[in-house]
Amino acid sequence: MVVPRLIERKRDGGSLTGDEWRELIRSYTTGDVPDYQMAALAMAIFYRGLTPDELAALTDAMLSSGDRLHFDGESRQRIDKHSTGGVGDKTSLLLAPMLAACGVLVPMMSGRGLGHTGGTLDKLEAIPGFRTGLSLRDAEAQVCRIGAAMLGQTEEIAPADRKLYALRDVTATVESIPLISASIMSKKLAEGLTGLVLDVKIGSGAFLPEEARALELARTMISLGEARGCPTVVLVTAMDRPLGVACGNALEVVESIAGLRGEGPADLMEVTFALGIEMLHLAKIEGDPVAARKRLEATISSGAALDVLRQMIAAQGGNPSIVDDPQLLARAPVQLDVLADRDGVVTQVEPRALGRVIIELGGGRRAVTDTVLPDVGLEVFAKPGAVVRRGDRLAVVHARTRSAAEGVVPAVLAAVTIGDVAIPALPLVAWRVSATGEQRYGATS
Amino acid sequence: MVVPRLIERKRDGGSLTGDEWRELIRSYTTGDVPDYQMAALAMAIFYRGLTPDELAALTDAMLSSGDRLHFDGESRQRIDKHSTGGVGDKTSLLLAPMLAACGVLVPMMSGRGLGHTGGTLDKLEAIPGFRTGLSLRDAEAQVCRIGAAMLGQTEEIAPADRKLYALRDVTATVESIPLISASIMSKKLAEGLTGLVLDVKIGSGAFLPEEARALELARTMISLGEARGCPTVVLVTAMDRPLGVACGNALEVVESIAGLRGEGPADLMEVTFALGIEMLHLAKIEGDPVAARKRLEATISSGAALDVLRQMIAAQGGNPSIVDDPQLLARAPVQLDVLADRDGVVTQVEPRALGRVIIELGGGRRAVTDTVLPDVGLEVFAKPGAVVRRGDRLAVVHARTRSAAEGVVPAVLAAVTIGDVAIPALPLVAWRVSATGEQRYGATS
Repeated sequence: MVVPRLIERKRDGGSLTGDEWRELIRSYTTGDVPDYQMAALAMAIFYRGLTPDELAALTDAMLSSGDRLHFDGESRQRIDKHSTGGVGDKTSLLLAPMLAACGVLVPMMSGRGLGHTGGTLDKLEAIPGFRTGLSLRDAEAQVCRIGAAMLGQTEEIAPADRKLYALRDVTATVESIPLISASIMSKKLAEGLTGLVLDVKIGSGAFLPEEARALELARTMISLGEARGCPTVVLVTAMDRPLGVACGNALEVVESIAGLRGEGPADLMEVTFALGIEMLHLAKIEGDPVAARKRLEATISSGAALDVLRQMIAAQGGNPSIVDDPQLLARAPVQLDVLADRDGVVTQVEPRALGRVIIELGGGRRAVTDTVLPDVGLEVFAKPGAVVRRGDRLAVVHARTRSAAEGVVPAVLAAVTIGDVAIPALPLVAWRVSATGEQRYGATS
Repeated sequence: MVVPRLIERKRDGGSLTGDEWRELIRSYTTGDVPDYQMAALAMAIFYRGLTPDELAALTDAMLSSGDRLHFDGESRQRIDKHSTGGVGDKTSLLLAPMLAACGVLVPMMSGRGLGHTGGTLDKLEAIPGFRTGLSLRDAEAQVCRIGAAMLGQTEEIAPADRKLYALRDVTATVESIPLISASIMSKKLAEGLTGLVLDVKIGSGAFLPEEARALELARTMISLGEARGCPTVVLVTAMDRPLGVACGNALEVVESIAGLRGEGPADLMEVTFALGIEMLHLAKIEGDPVAARKRLEATISSGAALDVLRQMIAAQGGNPSIVDDPQLLARAPVQLDVLADRDGVVTQVEPRALGRVIIELGGGRRAVTDTVLPDVGLEVFAKPGAVVRRGDRLAVVHARTRSAAEGVVPAVLAAVTIGDVAIPALPLVAWRVSATGEQRYGATS
């Protein structure tokens, strides 16, 4: 294998064989292929893409570079949900307990926040004592016992992806649909799933803002999942504004618990139910959307979902009392209201800018090595299309100091724009994409 | 300076400022910017190119990353010739002595062979004792005393280019016109020249085979040179067959000496004179091509050029007796004739394939760390368009062993194809390009 010739072939629009991808990823994992060659190749892939065969070979090579969860002899369905990332998106914290309460096993490996988007692991770690660093064997046992485990990508899972993702992050080669697809799917396929629901965000705060690109990513990941015995469905959802009200680690745990009590914000619950319906469908528990939603609502009204959450927190070393007394979670010492400076209608609530405010407050990461504060963040009440009057509360800043809070107010006001005429927001759920095609969400097929 | 954002901007078709290029090259030279980021950037440049301002900033940054030759107070013109590389191209060995004999100073920094192309340094080192590792100060003194010095790119010259070139070589990012231009010109501009003649090859054995790309490279390098006070002229010459007969290090020295005695192959001498005429023109010694050629021929007939060669060899530690007795050069123990296997006309003499034969014999490099044998190589008598009969001698293989010689015969026969109808070869000199434009060579302007 002469690596420069492989890079050259991809650079000029050719393709590599399955054997070449396997050997390349194997050698990259061991360090025999240096980062600089992989960086040049990643940039060539950014421009040239990958054929379906190449993408399959790359994904399989990354998947088999490490260990995976095993559920041999387990007859229950194992379904996970994964999102491409957003601001205020805490649906994972709701769905894992809700689905487990429906009898579905949810082995959920999540990531940390980076850039303007939050990460499920950071949110969970706002729960005092909660350990996300489970071993794969402990995670398997917990999933089978409680129904759900939420853990970080361990060292053993797809080490080639870990290494390649870190490289892409510093070489401006992240935004490549085949590379994103291979990265996500190599990790998700390591969870031993029988079905996968993907939440691909669109809008200004999304990783890939454009609908066309999001649909391409959706189709690419579905092909990979389906071809590997993991039926995959994608919902394309809105990230042109934050999801729910709470944005920030502990704040989002509080809102998730509220959601599991039946007191969640409408937009958060709508997306959560839409994703949960697909999960129940894939789990062959309930194929009818209306009946599925009723089942999910029942896990809330019965307290069953909250009960799973308590068990999961306890199993992972956290204090389960936070479920009944969210005041036990860290709370920032300063709360500062951000008020509307004019009458009008909210025209935009820009998630990317709000995500950067959270980083500024210490609640997010600029670099993977940054630590995050659990308590800081934003509650954003303003929603696009809402009519407001001067002096109305648009948001609350949760900060460590008064000056830190005051310092971000201009940025919050810039992110929450008020105009004279409402601008149509994206539908919360825009598309449903499956192996049989894509359709606008809610349309009858 | 956040490097991933710079890479991203170039990736998406934007441009970097002069300050950004300076800082980037400075940090890359010190190691603060790692190879993997520069590799991703180089691949982005491969696809997106550089604006003229970016190219100028990059070239200047690479030039000023190191030292340069200084000729303060020296009133004589200093002219170099540089080629983009080929097989059998030994014009440098002829031109340096010929031009010095005309009163031009020739400070010539050359490279080693890599891939199918030969390198001037390797040829010079076939002369017993010849040192190409001159210090810059010694080179300056020798140029002023003898009129010419031929040396390798020292550690002090454009270290950023050395590092970047080595990286490009292993990341399939060599064939980028702006990167090639910046690399060549940052080194040539470090020679303290008052004029530069570039020989840009076209044809199957050239680095950039296509005429349109060669002309683009020519225009790019001319702009860089002219804007930096170094008038630059390009001749676009043929590399669809080897230049001259000898291909291989010592063999080419022998042929160069023959050329300086007036016994060189016609094609080699035609290109040599064409380049020399441009050098004399830039040196303001003789603007009329016919008179310039006469002057160059006189350096041969008078023995003045050979005399400069003797002095240069002596000054650089070599044995000057080889000029009068080329038998003192290493000669491979085995010579094997390659004979035509049919009657017909020579349709192709493929330099790339013949270059690979020389590598196979040990006379060239696959990797920069390879050492080369001085004595092995090929004499290729066959020229495109020549009528041959079965049994005619097409080439002679010079090898270390009989089996090595026999082993390459099929490759030589495959490279020298004989057909029924002659295929037109490229004109030896196709284009003359200068700051005022380009014209077919020999056409009246």
